[in-house]
Amino acid sequence: MISERLKPLMANNSAVRQMFEEGNKLRAKYGRENVFDFSVGNPDAPTPPEIGQAIKDIVDETPAIELHGYMSNAGYEDVRETVAQHINKLQGTDFGKNNIIMTVGAASALNIALKTILNPGEEVVIFSPYFLEYNWYVMNYDGVVVPCETDENFMPDLERFEAAITEKTRAVLINSPHNPTGVIYSEEVIRGIASVMDRKQKEYGRAIFLIADEPYRELAYDGIEVPYVTKYYDNTFVVYSYSKSLSLPGERIGYLVIPSEMEDSELVFDTATAVNRIMGCVNAPAIQQKLIGRCIDSQVNVDYYDRNRKTLYGGLTDLGFECIMPQGAFYLMVKSPVEDAAEFCEAAKKYNILMVNGKSFMAPGYVRLAYCVSYETIVNSMEAFKKLAAEYGL
Amino acid sequence: MISERLKPLMANNSAVRQMFEEGNKLRAKYGRENVFDFSVGNPDAPTPPEIGQAIKDIVDETPAIELHGYMSNAGYEDVRETVAQHINKLQGTDFGKNNIIMTVGAASALNIALKTILNPGEEVVIFSPYFLEYNWYVMNYDGVVVPCETDENFMPDLERFEAAITEKTRAVLINSPHNPTGVIYSEEVIRGIASVMDRKQKEYGRAIFLIADEPYRELAYDGIEVPYVTKYYDNTFVVYSYSKSLSLPGERIGYLVIPSEMEDSELVFDTATAVNRIMGCVNAPAIQQKLIGRCIDSQVNVDYYDRNRKTLYGGLTDLGFECIMPQGAFYLMVKSPVEDAAEFCEAAKKYNILMVNGKSFMAPGYVRLAYCVSYETIVNSMEAFKKLAAEYGL
Repeated sequence: MISERLKPLMANNSAVRQMFEEGNKLRAKYGRENVFDFSVGNPDAPTPPEIGQAIKDIVDETPAIELHGYMSNAGYEDVRETVAQHINKLQGTDFGKNNIIMTVGAASALNIALKTILNPGEEVVIFSPYFLEYNWYVMNYDGVVVPCETDENFMPDLERFEAAITEKTRAVLINSPHNPTGVIYSEEVIRGIASVMDRKQKEYGRAIFLIADEPYRELAYDGIEVPYVTKYYDNTFVVYSYSKSLSLPGERIGYLVIPSEMEDSELVFDTATAVNRIMGCVNAPAIQQKLIGRCIDSQVNVDYYDRNRKTLYGGLTDLGFECIMPQGAFYLMVKSPVEDAAEFCEAAKKYNILMVNGKSFMAPGYVRLAYCVSYETIVNSMEAFKKLAAEYGL
Repeated sequence: MISERLKPLMANNSAVRQMFEEGNKLRAKYGRENVFDFSVGNPDAPTPPEIGQAIKDIVDETPAIELHGYMSNAGYEDVRETVAQHINKLQGTDFGKNNIIMTVGAASALNIALKTILNPGEEVVIFSPYFLEYNWYVMNYDGVVVPCETDENFMPDLERFEAAITEKTRAVLINSPHNPTGVIYSEEVIRGIASVMDRKQKEYGRAIFLIADEPYRELAYDGIEVPYVTKYYDNTFVVYSYSKSLSLPGERIGYLVIPSEMEDSELVFDTATAVNRIMGCVNAPAIQQKLIGRCIDSQVNVDYYDRNRKTLYGGLTDLGFECIMPQGAFYLMVKSPVEDAAEFCEAAKKYNILMVNGKSFMAPGYVRLAYCVSYETIVNSMEAFKKLAAEYGL
C-alpha cells in the first residue's frame, strides 16, 4: 500500500519506535524520576517567560483577519526584515527581507533548500558522524548522500573532503554546533571548507552550494564563537530554527537565509519561496512569525545546558568513561568500553539509562547522550552510571 | 542555479506575480476601495471571536515547556481524538485518534498522502477543471496527472472516468465543494465514482486510492449535504483544513484522515506520520493544534459568503452574464462573452475588475470570481460590471 521508496524508512522507523516504547515501559514500571532518558533531543530549558505574554499581546493587538490571513509565501515582510537586521547586528552581515524566508522549522528549510537546487542523482557531501535524518531529506529529491569521514576530533579532514567532491556534487551540508558530537567549526575550519569548494567550483565550472544547518547556533559554551558562514562562501544557504534558542520545537518556526552574494540570488529566493508553497507548507505559521518579530532578542538561558554539560562530562569522566567534551549543542559522545556499542546500550538499560548507539549517526563505537534534560536527572543518574562503570571494570 | 525540474514552475510563477503586481498598481492609483479584486481565494469572513480568547487561554493554562514542546509527529493525541469524535458526531463514522494526523494545512496533508503512496510514473486522475496547484503536488513525487473532463455541469462523466483509469492509476483526487466551479458532488455521484473504482481495483488487482480534498466542506449553501467519502469507499484519504471554516489560512492547520477500513491502515498511518517528519514539517504547529482541540465546534458565519454568492450571481445574471450558480465554496464561474477569456479579463481591468482566466483551472472560455471579499466590494463592483456588460452589448 505504501510507496516502494519509503519501505526502507519504515523498516528503520520501527527501531526508533521500539526504543521509545521501551522507554515508556521503564517509566511505567519504575516511575518517571527513576528513568534516566538521554535518548531524545527535546529541549528542556525553560521557554523565556516573555514568550507567552507576547503571544497574548499579538492576539490582543492584531485584527484577527489580518493576523490569521495569508501573507507572502516567504513570510511577513516586517518579520523578515526584523530577522535580517538582527543577524546584521550580531554578525555584521548586510541582509534585508529579501534574503530571508520564514519556514516551518529548520527541517522544512533544509527540505526547501535541497528541493530548490537538486537534480536527480546529484550528490550532497556530509561530514560523518551526522544526523541521519539528512539522508531522507536528500533522498526526498533523488539526491545521493556522500558521507565524508572526519578526523579523530570529529573535524573535517580537508584532503578527504576534496576527494569526496566530484562533478556530481551539488551541495555540502554542514552542522555546527554539531549533533551528535558537540563540536563547533572554527573560522579556520570554515575557511578551509570554503577554499576547497571555491577551487572545486572553478574546476567543474558550476555552483556547489554550502548549506549550514544551525539550529544550535546559540548553544556555544566557554565563549566560543560560531563563525557566520555566508561571510566565507557566497553560495551559502543558512538554515535556522528557534526550536532550541527559544525552547519551542513544537511550534515549527525557523528561516532560510539566501544571501545576495549567491549567484542568481533573486531567482533562487523566488524558487525557494515557490517550493515552500508547492511542498504544502505554503508559509510558516502566522502567530509564530509574529512572535519572532516581537521576541527577536529573547533566548533561553544557555547556562542551563552548560551546567548539565559540565556535570555530566565531569561525572562520567570521573567514573572512568572516555567522553568528548562538547563545545556546543546539547549532546555528549561517550566511547563504548566494549567494541559493540549496542551491547553497551543494552547493559545501560539494566540501570534504567537510555542512550543512543552512535551507529545511528555513523559514529560506531560511541553512544550519544542528549543532556537537554533536567539537572536533577543528571545528578540522580550518577549512581546508575557508577554501577554501569563497575560492570565494565572502570 | 535551480533544479531543472522547477524551471516550468518558475515560468508560471512569474505570471501569477505579474497579476498580483498589476492589482497593487491599480490599488495604488485608484485607492483600495475602487479596485474590485475577485482574483484571490483569501477568506474574508470574520474569524469567530472565541478564537483569540482560546489562544490566550491556552497560553495561560498550559505550562510553556509542555505547550511548545515536541509531541508525536501525528499531533497531540487528545486533539486527534477530539477531531475524530467531532467527525463521528457529524458523519456517523467511527474514527479514533489513530485515524487522524494533524498537518500544516490541507496542502501539506495532500503532499503527505501523495508521497506516502506514489511510485514514479504512477497516475493520479483528477476531474477537470481543477486547482492546477495539484499538478505540482503530484509532480513532487514523480506522479503523472491524468485530467478527466467533466460534463456540461462540471460533474464527473463516469464513462470517461472509467476510461481514464489504467493499470498505472494509483489515486483519484476529488474536491467537493469545488474550486473553481462551486459544484458539490451528491451521494449519487460519490457512489458512482466508488463503484467504478471498486471495479477497477478488482480488475487490476491493486489498490486505487481516493483522495477527497475538502477545505470547503462547511461552505455548502441551500442546505445541500456534502457526503462523507470514507462511507462509500474504503481506500479513501480525507484532507481537511481549518483555513476556510475558521478564516485562519495563515496559521496552517488541518488534518489527514486515514480510516481503519483502508487496506493496511496502520502501516499507511505510520508511513504518513513518518512522511510528515521527513518532509520537514515534523508536526503541525503546537498552538494551532491546541486551538482546534478547544474550538472544535467553532465556525465562520456561512451566511457571510452566501449573501455574497447570491448578490454577485444575481447582479451578474441581471446584467446578462451567463454564470454557474455555485452550490458551495466561494467561487463563481462566469462564461466569457467572447471566445478568448484572456481578452475578457483584460477588458475587465479597464473598470478595475480583477478576475482569473478559467484557463488557469483548465476551464477555457470561463473566468473565475472569488467572492470571499467584503459585501461592499460586491455591491460597489456592480457599476463597473455594468460598463463591462455594455462593452459586450449585453
